[in-house]
Amino acid sequence: MMKKLTIGKLRGLQQIASEDGIFVICAIDHRESFRNMIGGKNPEGVSTAEMTVRKMELCSTLGRYGSAVLLDPIFGAAQCIAGGALPRDAGLLVSIEASGYGGGKENRRTELLNDWGVEKIKRMGASAVKILLYYRPDLKPLAGEQLAIISQVAQDCIEYDIPFLVEPVSYPVGSEISDPEKFAAIKGKLVIQTARDITALPIDVLKAEFPADLRYEKDRSRLIELCRQLDAASRVPWVILSAGVDFETFLQQVEIACQAGASGFLGGRAIWQEVVSLAGAAARVEWLSTVGADRLKRLVEVANRYATPWYRKRGLETHELAEVSEDWYREY
Amino acid sequence: MMKKLTIGKLRGLQQIASEDGIFVICAIDHRESFRNMIGGKNPEGVSTAEMTVRKMELCSTLGRYGSAVLLDPIFGAAQCIAGGALPRDAGLLVSIEASGYGGGKENRRTELLNDWGVEKIKRMGASAVKILLYYRPDLKPLAGEQLAIISQVAQDCIEYDIPFLVEPVSYPVGSEISDPEKFAAIKGKLVIQTARDITALPIDVLKAEFPADLRYEKDRSRLIELCRQLDAASRVPWVILSAGVDFETFLQQVEIACQAGASGFLGGRAIWQEVVSLAGAAARVEWLSTVGADRLKRLVEVANRYATPWYRKRGLETHELAEVSEDWYREY
Repeated sequence: MMKKLTIGKLRGLQQIASEDGIFVICAIDHRESFRNMIGGKNPEGVSTAEMTVRKMELCSTLGRYGSAVLLDPIFGAAQCIAGGALPRDAGLLVSIEASGYGGGKENRRTELLNDWGVEKIKRMGASAVKILLYYRPDLKPLAGEQLAIISQVAQDCIEYDIPFLVEPVSYPVGSEISDPEKFAAIKGKLVIQTARDITALPIDVLKAEFPADLRYEKDRSRLIELCRQLDAASRVPWVILSAGVDFETFLQQVEIACQAGASGFLGGRAIWQEVVSLAGAAARVEWLSTVGADRLKRLVEVANRYATPWYRKRGLETHELAEVSEDWYREY
Repeated sequence: MMKKLTIGKLRGLQQIASEDGIFVICAIDHRESFRNMIGGKNPEGVSTAEMTVRKMELCSTLGRYGSAVLLDPIFGAAQCIAGGALPRDAGLLVSIEASGYGGGKENRRTELLNDWGVEKIKRMGASAVKILLYYRPDLKPLAGEQLAIISQVAQDCIEYDIPFLVEPVSYPVGSEISDPEKFAAIKGKLVIQTARDITALPIDVLKAEFPADLRYEKDRSRLIELCRQLDAASRVPWVILSAGVDFETFLQQVEIACQAGASGFLGGRAIWQEVVSLAGAAARVEWLSTVGADRLKRLVEVANRYATPWYRKRGLETHELAEVSEDWYREY
């Protein structure tokens, strides 16, 4: 059984989860990758205004079908609130990292976005802080330096009493770069060890990669087993990310992960990537309101059927998630 | 047209209002008055645990039918979150004042609760700060001192970017004390001048008394006229409070106020006061889930039919409530 929660963290987790404690969250926090998707061969031609309009289309259509949305602080979060695109009862997670990474392709360093931080995320009324962290548990001393960033942000999240969600992302190095099958063969081990390392720190939710590559590993019982190991490695509730796989693959991954102990999903491109190439707002909104909404609803259905409510993963029931002493308001 | 909003204030207002911008809020922030209601002749016999249980009964049943609930920081707010009694999509307002008042019965001074404040209200994940302020515009220099408290809290709310709702409450002095009709005769003037004074300060929502006493003033067109004057006096969106009148009276007041420009209601005892005397949690929950819920639904219906969405009162449409520059995240 985990430690009880503080009130701000608990309220935030309640807001980003469904009433039943399942995370069914849509990611719309992409920045340079989103610009590239829209611009194709001419990403520089994509204006900030265009980025924002596209995010508002995604948020106002898909935001109604999940428990929360994840937005970036540059093109999305404030704009979706200001423009009325974020539904009042959708929880809001906001990213804290800078787009891309420092270091080289084989030793990626996460950088925090300048002039931004936990204090501002809390102040704007968001429910949770998210960080994307490039991570290879086997790359020393880089791994430790990356963990130090998590520790630092985690402390800020404790101070401002807001939930902290960490998304570690692995990447190929050396000969794995030109040999995807080789990288796929170690993916499970990487993802599971990463979960162990990251959730030893005081974070609240892990956003995990699927611990296998479905192109190479098709045995369902083996996939379930890997997800169970991931569940055992994670000391906190976890959700599965989509990493831009196609929708049907993501649906499978969500089902397997939730059967193995995940508390839901946090999916982005797998839900909406095809919309980016459609010309005209009307056509895009139509696609998002039909195909996109339908996809999200199917994912929610699967998560609702199989996922573990996040408080259960903490070994607690809904009425015992926090302790409130008679002097709570003084001591808080 | 009013000034645009900052993002935290806007998100908070969106959370305490309905999707349509109407405030349909249930007040459960009573403290000593609540203890007296429960305890009757023996209020000292009412334990803190009992107070909390009663608040959780109210919150978990009525919290589903409005847009938000107002809770106190001693017995209610943290406990309702911790106990799972506060629905995830109900906005949360929390009181900042101490119960009762300093000074005498005829020169009431509002006091802030010690060891509590805007920073903690924001940190716990609430959507808005509420203050009850005893106020007589004609009592100088006390009125100015009371306004100074509002200015001070308003500054904190700006700093933490959270909406600020002010509930000024008038009271009889001198010969008005023994002559309710005399007090009733000046009530309209008091409430309207109070609205003018209070909303000159940087607050976000006014929680106003009904500007007449329905026992003495029954002419509907006169009541509408008084509420129109109140609407003209208030520079910010306003809601009508219940002050423990019986339910049917409150329903009438909400209808009249909303027809005259109010953005909804913030009602407490008129909705649930009879439940206090029922013995046994099961009987109380049954009453709240039927009679209480039905009352709240009828109020919501009336508000939805007649009320002015809060952003309209600000002279703005939903998509233009805040300005977000390209450098918003840096400047915020």
